Amino acid sequence: MPRRKIAVIGVGKIAQDQHLPVIEKGEDFELAALVSQRGVGHGGVPVFSTPTELYAAMPEIGLVAICTPPGVRHELALEAINAGKDVLLEKPPSTTISEFDDLCQKATRKGRLLFQTWHSRENAAVDRARDILAAEGVARLRIDWRESVRKWHPGQDWVWEPGGFGVFDPGINALSILTQILPFPVFVEGALLRYPANRQTPVDVEIAFRTGEPHRPEISAHFNWLETEGEVWTISIETSAGRRLALEKGGTVLRIDGEVALEAPSEEYERIYDRFADRLDAGQSETDDRPLRLVADAMMLGRRETVAAFDW
Amino acid sequence: MPRRKIAVIGVGKIAQDQHLPVIEKGEDFELAALVSQRGVGHGGVPVFSTPTELYAAMPEIGLVAICTPPGVRHELALEAINAGKDVLLEKPPSTTISEFDDLCQKATRKGRLLFQTWHSRENAAVDRARDILAAEGVARLRIDWRESVRKWHPGQDWVWEPGGFGVFDPGINALSILTQILPFPVFVEGALLRYPANRQTPVDVEIAFRTGEPHRPEISAHFNWLETEGEVWTISIETSAGRRLALEKGGTVLRIDGEVALEAPSEEYERIYDRFADRLDAGQSETDDRPLRLVADAMMLGRRETVAAFDW
Repeated sequence: MPRRKIAVIGVGKIAQDQHLPVIEKGEDFELAALVSQRGVGHGGVPVFSTPTELYAAMPEIGLVAICTPPGVRHELALEAINAGKDVLLEKPPSTTISEFDDLCQKATRKGRLLFQTWHSRENAAVDRARDILAAEGVARLRIDWRESVRKWHPGQDWVWEPGGFGVFDPGINALSILTQILPFPVFVEGALLRYPANRQTPVDVEIAFRTGEPHRPEISAHFNWLETEGEVWTISIETSAGRRLALEKGGTVLRIDGEVALEAPSEEYERIYDRFADRLDAGQSETDDRPLRLVADAMMLGRRETVAAFDW
Repeated sequence: MPRRKIAVIGVGKIAQDQHLPVIEKGEDFELAALVSQRGVGHGGVPVFSTPTELYAAMPEIGLVAICTPPGVRHELALEAINAGKDVLLEKPPSTTISEFDDLCQKATRKGRLLFQTWHSRENAAVDRARDILAAEGVARLRIDWRESVRKWHPGQDWVWEPGGFGVFDPGINALSILTQILPFPVFVEGALLRYPANRQTPVDVEIAFRTGEPHRPEISAHFNWLETEGEVWTISIETSAGRRLALEKGGTVLRIDGEVALEAPSEEYERIYDRFADRLDAGQSETDDRPLRLVADAMMLGRRETVAAFDW
């Protein structure tokens, strides 16, 4: 089968670190063009300043991967759908729930395929944890997600602006794993949102979840963006059968009762593009707004606290 | 056709002001029982302390109207659906998007009917405005929704607590009209949320909306909860044909180019129960989360400002 031609829109860090190399080394896709306002090129393919120019010049390209910052993704995805393209969207797929729902509806109406990259789910350890929880049930689950914003987003003031998500930017990865592994729906019961005095997005978030399950499992999360020495991306679980699981290092390692049960090299974007290819074969979208909804729910229900100002 | 037996769960102000008298004076429903933790009765019908007792004692009642505060509606609606009841939910139907989506899915799966009361939509002037905008298009639209929280919610501290919605409590009524009359989807572009220094929900909100429409209509809203002298619940519109519409008094009056074109006595809850009966005849749910989503979007995207403390 010939490779499918794909264009990447937005050639920033995530495109360069993941999308471009993964597209090139796989066998399903052919990188056919780029759209970059700043004219960033790669691999000698044509570079356009706008998607409109791309669609006019190379109508044979049927797929786009949108890797811009989230604020403009809705508009770009709509334009792509209207131009008859199938669309892969970086996470988070949009800055509001209404935008994402709109894209899902429009894609369906136009017969186009939509796919979003909740990359942290794409790990064998996550699959295994999901299977165990389906079999054994969940008694307790705790998310600890603490990293250094200075290390991962040095000087990027936009993460602190409205729509920049703050510590929900890493936190939504944990929520994408949570919604993938739990065998039942989960709801925000309450949240505590700590905002630096001089910033518009939270630096530290605690969430208490509830479920509709009669045995009332205890589920909670803590996200922090000022951790320097002990960065951690762990989900600790006690199953109803009494086993202790720990998904560590962002979902790449699974411990069972303290012993490493599964540790695989991270191939999150390889899996994303594999499944995108499968979905294209099947002609079926994959859209899941649950992680984004939980963020919206936490921000709607959260108690706000002001903490020390943040400066780089 | 015999009247359908209905139970009202939560016998507070909105139940007493609207649901109970409207059920009694109409011909479609028969008030058959109440659920009130505090034992509030009405019309001599049986009063239960919990829905569980109601469902056990009077299984012949197939419908419930849930009129409690929003925080517990999800749990009560789930219990009702699981007990095989069709459900009418006061607005807002839940405190989070995830809860409302869950109810929609569960109702569908269980073959039960779900209906929510966006009451401000239920006015002839709103219908007429929607028809005019469908024919003439929208160039500009402005929502001004200013009222006195001291007058409408005297001493009710819960409106200022997380999940209490603050000035979004009246504002969501405007959003329920907005999403009803616009002939295209609308998205939050940005928002300014003003929080009293000692409170957890906003007292004043400005929202800028965007659309996917090529002519870029200007749409904005201002909600304020400290208005005393000049309370106003108005949506002012300029159509693309140049006519000026004003929906006034919360959607009950329509002016066209300054002249009153339609003014009908408010029969919002009568219309709600009429349409609930129609939906039951048709066996079809009516669920629309767009007003709630726009609130969540504004709170997720909004810039926060602290303003003077609020005390009653």
